[in-house]
Amino acid sequence: MSTRITTIYRVKAEPATIEARARGIAVEQSVEMPVEPIDDPFVLENILGQVEEITEIAPGDYEVRIGLASITTGYDAAQFINMILGNTSLQDGITLVDAIFPADIVTAFGGPNHGLEGFRSRVKAKGALSATALKPQGTPPATLARLAYDIALGGIDYIKDDHGLADQSYAPFAARVPMIAEAVSKAGAKTGIATRYLPSLNGNLDKMRAQIALARECGIDGVLIAPMLCGFSQFQTIKAENPDFLFMTHPSMAGGPMAPAFFFGKLMRLMGSDASIFANYGGRFGYSPELCHQIASLCLEEVQGQKPCVPVPAGGMELKRVPELLNFFGTGVILLIGGSLLSAKQKITAETAKFCDAVRNFS
Amino acid sequence: MSTRITTIYRVKAEPATIEARARGIAVEQSVEMPVEPIDDPFVLENILGQVEEITEIAPGDYEVRIGLASITTGYDAAQFINMILGNTSLQDGITLVDAIFPADIVTAFGGPNHGLEGFRSRVKAKGALSATALKPQGTPPATLARLAYDIALGGIDYIKDDHGLADQSYAPFAARVPMIAEAVSKAGAKTGIATRYLPSLNGNLDKMRAQIALARECGIDGVLIAPMLCGFSQFQTIKAENPDFLFMTHPSMAGGPMAPAFFFGKLMRLMGSDASIFANYGGRFGYSPELCHQIASLCLEEVQGQKPCVPVPAGGMELKRVPELLNFFGTGVILLIGGSLLSAKQKITAETAKFCDAVRNFS
Repeated sequence: MSTRITTIYRVKAEPATIEARARGIAVEQSVEMPVEPIDDPFVLENILGQVEEITEIAPGDYEVRIGLASITTGYDAAQFINMILGNTSLQDGITLVDAIFPADIVTAFGGPNHGLEGFRSRVKAKGALSATALKPQGTPPATLARLAYDIALGGIDYIKDDHGLADQSYAPFAARVPMIAEAVSKAGAKTGIATRYLPSLNGNLDKMRAQIALARECGIDGVLIAPMLCGFSQFQTIKAENPDFLFMTHPSMAGGPMAPAFFFGKLMRLMGSDASIFANYGGRFGYSPELCHQIASLCLEEVQGQKPCVPVPAGGMELKRVPELLNFFGTGVILLIGGSLLSAKQKITAETAKFCDAVRNFS
Repeated sequence: MSTRITTIYRVKAEPATIEARARGIAVEQSVEMPVEPIDDPFVLENILGQVEEITEIAPGDYEVRIGLASITTGYDAAQFINMILGNTSLQDGITLVDAIFPADIVTAFGGPNHGLEGFRSRVKAKGALSATALKPQGTPPATLARLAYDIALGGIDYIKDDHGLADQSYAPFAARVPMIAEAVSKAGAKTGIATRYLPSLNGNLDKMRAQIALARECGIDGVLIAPMLCGFSQFQTIKAENPDFLFMTHPSMAGGPMAPAFFFGKLMRLMGSDASIFANYGGRFGYSPELCHQIASLCLEEVQGQKPCVPVPAGGMELKRVPELLNFFGTGVILLIGGSLLSAKQKITAETAKFCDAVRNFS
């Protein structure tokens, strides 16, 4: 008997059709063919999806729980995504809202290698953490390095590449990363704060391996990665090969028929995100405070021995919001400030210091 | 001056906010920071996204055209997706409906290596093509090979793995593929039809490379790949390394804020899909006949020297629908039949022959 992942979908359907609809999902996400001609008892008992429960939330709106056999994932992360949502992503009126992972799935993917404790200990902090991103793309490496130096002088904990910094001609990874790493390290020697630089990995597996090897040579011990761009198998591999690295995950391309709370709070954590960036409320994305609170709680709560993943609310962060946001999220958080810091221009070191002080001195 | 990709979004917005909304997309998908502090003229002229046009489709419903610099993609397929939709996928009320690719983008990604002509010539056909999928997952390799043999005896053109067949313990790729390839080849020697087997690639780049090398040893010259699962960079790499192979693309996880016509008809083709599977009308997915017609037209139309990609409508195909569908799609098509063929059980060779005859003899 295989263990089963309980996948939970929200389904819009006429009351008369919901049972057939639920069976349809169970079939689509497992054998993907009519059940009648299947005569192999192994397939019927151990592979075919099972409708576990149908609950009416409101008229025409249902929660459907399906049991999907863990062995169908082959314990590969991309195949796992294929099995829990795959073809059903093409159906109108269905969202994957949650899933319950059996122990073998948790063991296979393993969750964060470091999580909150890792993000704190690298910079010798105990409370909330500060972070920013190097922008805009199009800026040459020397200018990015100078910007990183000025920000690091303000005492920030983490500086990441903007997710738009990939391997473009105007600032190739191999030219950019050593210069920025050196600049951040030089500033850290002055401030006494071990500011960390998280470069953004991109491209195929060969390229990511070369990038992380180069980062390692530069004394870097954490990176930014966007699993929906590179694929979850590639993230799984890079994480397994670099158990000493911190992985901050980026939400690019995460829109779609997967509920954000599940995606950012559970799936990213299961797959090994040490810190999961998501769209903060009150910024330029439409996430509600309730949703952000739910994501943060899921990232941090005790669950099946997985280390806590740091929630990273981002998008529209400003200095004046620091107390509000730390009251709201608590101190198990990284506050990621972007554009509003960069707007300080020549005063960026001083503005960064104000932001970091506000984060560090919150109580 | 960089060339620009014109990305076309459908945006729901109040009339008073649409201009700011459009500028917001242009910024989000390029510099991702306030424009005011940017003083580098290279960034302002060559990197910053430009609002090209805003057209009201209906009250509160707009088409927005944004010019995004090609150089920001670094000509990497995943970074290309990051730039054309990335963070904007997290916004409510925005769909990427289309894009116009400049010549450098078309040259970089290149479109299909073989396309329709390749799919026809491998099996010495001139009209519509027939295909089916091996199912259900959970079936052991010897049984899948026997099933493939019985189907191939019916004279089908292409037999692909179900996209659920990955590398699970009960039918590992390395055990399954040689057995199925041999069975299909044996049947082909009897029928005189060069039936091709397309195994499903899965896992990370190392694994896919090993899989395609094994497939090659078995005399296989085409595969199934799901770019939204493995990531577009991995597909780009595998395609570049295997210019003699046919790539049939699978739609798993393609639901989300990208219009299906663009995704299946343009993006898959640009990235090198030789045959693009999508959800057919009248089956278990909700695509309309108009949408399916649009996808097929986009796959096949003359565009910037790209070879035609074969449209592959799938999902709910039945023998009796063959004339209807060939009248609708024309003969530049692969008709993919799945469950309804498998329901024939012991009579599967005869049912396959009927299906293939209906496809081949259509005029």
